[in-house]
Amino acid sequence: MTTEWDRHLSLEPLGEGRYAGALDAGWSVGGGINGGFQLALAGAAISAHLPGKPDPVTVSAYYLSAGTPGPAEVSVDVRRDGGRLATVAADLVQDGQTRLTLLSTYSDLDRFEGDVRTTAVEPELPPQEECAGPGDVPEFVLEIAPLMRRFEMRFPIEQTAWIRGETRGEGHFSAWFRLNDGREPDPVALLMVLDALPPVTFDLGMVGWAPTLELTCHVRAKPAPGWLKVQHHTRNFAGGMFEEDCEVWDSTGRLVAQSRQLALAPRVG
Amino acid sequence: MTTEWDRHLSLEPLGEGRYAGALDAGWSVGGGINGGFQLALAGAAISAHLPGKPDPVTVSAYYLSAGTPGPAEVSVDVRRDGGRLATVAADLVQDGQTRLTLLSTYSDLDRFEGDVRTTAVEPELPPQEECAGPGDVPEFVLEIAPLMRRFEMRFPIEQTAWIRGETRGEGHFSAWFRLNDGREPDPVALLMVLDALPPVTFDLGMVGWAPTLELTCHVRAKPAPGWLKVQHHTRNFAGGMFEEDCEVWDSTGRLVAQSRQLALAPRVG
Repeated sequence: MTTEWDRHLSLEPLGEGRYAGALDAGWSVGGGINGGFQLALAGAAISAHLPGKPDPVTVSAYYLSAGTPGPAEVSVDVRRDGGRLATVAADLVQDGQTRLTLLSTYSDLDRFEGDVRTTAVEPELPPQEECAGPGDVPEFVLEIAPLMRRFEMRFPIEQTAWIRGETRGEGHFSAWFRLNDGREPDPVALLMVLDALPPVTFDLGMVGWAPTLELTCHVRAKPAPGWLKVQHHTRNFAGGMFEEDCEVWDSTGRLVAQSRQLALAPRVG
Repeated sequence: MTTEWDRHLSLEPLGEGRYAGALDAGWSVGGGINGGFQLALAGAAISAHLPGKPDPVTVSAYYLSAGTPGPAEVSVDVRRDGGRLATVAADLVQDGQTRLTLLSTYSDLDRFEGDVRTTAVEPELPPQEECAGPGDVPEFVLEIAPLMRRFEMRFPIEQTAWIRGETRGEGHFSAWFRLNDGREPDPVALLMVLDALPPVTFDLGMVGWAPTLELTCHVRAKPAPGWLKVQHHTRNFAGGMFEEDCEVWDSTGRLVAQSRQLALAPRVG
């Protein structure tokens, strides 16, 4: 049985590196389409285009206009392909408007096994049943962010202050995460997971749209099946911009993906 | 009087977004040309191409082949220019070989003044006169890394263990930094500064070339004149790759630039 995720990422090859797909309205947030989902759709097209190198290793996306529900085309241009790495440029376009342009290096992550000397510390989260889950998300949030229905995200209760109109002020979120339909995570899906949490600015008392200028993702290993842990934070909110560093840990406790984005501060608060 | 830095970054416009310059042999390291200097040369061409938007805000570079001393051409393609931001794609090419390809958003950083709520902590360094400086760099290091003559970098003594063949094992470097000739830092120069420290893997006992796959720089403010502080570290050395996060602080104590790169682990140690 095909999962919702696989249906939403389905692509028709048009030849010459062009792939037809769609930005499903289910990934809307604040009127646009989630940037992480757009990146995963582009990422799936690149996978399809590079035989033997299905996995994103690093992807840098620049967002040029807001994605809208409807058809989208991804064009992939191979810039270098040799050894175990291939580097491509790709654009995601709707109605002649480029939504995002990216550079990316792909490989087969099974070829990067070996020594793991991670010093980053896996986030500690309360058991899932003690966290705020889908049943606790108020209707007004689901209306602003229909994408919350695509996955199950479970937050420590104290991190949901923003939903109650309160400010925690730490600039940090962490959560359990899994796709619905029982769909297990894979490297392309991680590109979406890295941009799925609410902006850290929500935790700083600024509940509003924070447009991403640039998002770079590193996928470091194939995630094991099961729940993921996702956390992000900012350390340099300044001059109307902020960076947001995100990490995804798999069910074996391995740090499988990291990202940093630069975003514009919301025009609120 | 023109400084060495400005001479090395000088470019001749060829029309249609093309600029002729050179990778000066003085920026060699381990036989190739420092990736940060290549990025600054490309960055200078983009500055020249975008009137009123001279400053890099975010730059993502993918390194496709090793730069060599000699002529280089930068081609700039404007992907979007509107409001206070412009996004470009650019390539740096030598003899028909693309050395690096990048995406970048430029602006005028003076238009991003305002609220500074940085929570990152400025690195503490001993006074410059208590640090290891240019006079302490052994000849064998200068031969491998002639770029060390382009600037003054002063490290806390305990961080120079690798020069003595010892391993400190923290995966972290921090240093005072200034260009020679008394050249004050600016946003384009920061693109080089973010890639000037020895790879953090030197501090982990792996003294060898660590090829950069991808380097993304965020320049967050114009640096004040004077000494800079630079520090970088890694938290996820795994599977033959590592990420390296770098920060540059200016003489007023402001975090003016941040970068993350993904690099391949050296084939040593």
